[in-house]
Amino acid sequence: MVNYPNQKKTFTRQKESQANRGMKFEEMLNETNAYYREHDIAMIFKKPIPIQIVKVDYPSRSGAVIKEAYYKIPSTTDYNGIYRGHYIDFEAKETQNKTSFPLSNIHAHQIEHLARVRDHGGISFLLLHLRKLDAIYLLDSKHLIGYHNRAKNGRKSISFEEIKTHGYLIAEGFAPRVPYLDIVDYLIEQKKA
Amino acid sequence: MVNYPNQKKTFTRQKESQANRGMKFEEMLNETNAYYREHDIAMIFKKPIPIQIVKVDYPSRSGAVIKEAYYKIPSTTDYNGIYRGHYIDFEAKETQNKTSFPLSNIHAHQIEHLARVRDHGGISFLLLHLRKLDAIYLLDSKHLIGYHNRAKNGRKSISFEEIKTHGYLIAEGFAPRVPYLDIVDYLIEQKKA
Repeated sequence: MVNYPNQKKTFTRQKESQANRGMKFEEMLNETNAYYREHDIAMIFKKPIPIQIVKVDYPSRSGAVIKEAYYKIPSTTDYNGIYRGHYIDFEAKETQNKTSFPLSNIHAHQIEHLARVRDHGGISFLLLHLRKLDAIYLLDSKHLIGYHNRAKNGRKSISFEEIKTHGYLIAEGFAPRVPYLDIVDYLIEQKKA
Repeated sequence: MVNYPNQKKTFTRQKESQANRGMKFEEMLNETNAYYREHDIAMIFKKPIPIQIVKVDYPSRSGAVIKEAYYKIPSTTDYNGIYRGHYIDFEAKETQNKTSFPLSNIHAHQIEHLARVRDHGGISFLLLHLRKLDAIYLLDSKHLIGYHNRAKNGRKSISFEEIKTHGYLIAEGFAPRVPYLDIVDYLIEQKKA
């Protein structure tokens, strides 16, 4: 089963991905989204980290300094926006694991959020950076939800074999670095069909 | 010119809005969006406030404490999400002014963001709480952009008369408190037409 809509693109992956080695996945995605915005292709942003602010000082007229604050658990996913008129929503994760992605790396309510976005007509997925394989996959939320449900009574991770079977390999590039919208184009086509 | 799609709803406004007096606009919108989510009507969230974190302490194994951080200028608007398959994006503002809304209350790049969302096929607008009139209006981004462009060479505010003419009055209610999606329904119909 070939899930990749445009298989030939993957040939360029091995060489170009050298440049990304050591770069954090989040930075790669920030660069990618900046590219998409600059070229007016899509308007997709990473949301700020949710913070509970407890104490703020005003040492000068120039501005406030937060002196005590705590990280909060995010109520949604990290990324959302618009592409070709479609609402896009996704979470991005990377793993150093060699054989599987543990579902404990993603909050249950984030998976449920992705499922609900899908029900409302949006396009939602997980972007997974498998560092040991030096590969990035897009896993549609419909599969992620399946694995999430399976985890309630069984296996609590997604094997790389499953990711390869049901996910879409993203050919890393230079500009944009992680061209995941190529796969989203394919998901849009599938939605129409 | 009557801009309100369902004029009769406004009759209930005066009485019910008493309950909202003193409540912050942001809280009213948070309640509204929670209502829409709980009833599976829409998935719209307020984004976290963007913070630049400088110093983090780890006083115990239980968690991190942010000891120095600064507010950043938001790169996008405060609210976005999905409704009826449409990408929704808006900014919310309130004013104590008696006759006009100063455009200095909203960042230029946020207005440009709303314009771009519109160009990409999304529905974008400003929700304005005019406290002195005890009234809430939805102003479509196409008008907001017009006033933004006018401000470059002329008047730097939007008069309440203009807001009344081009905006849509939102009938405040109890649940949801600020039923702005009633107006969005109308914008979706206009988009189709």
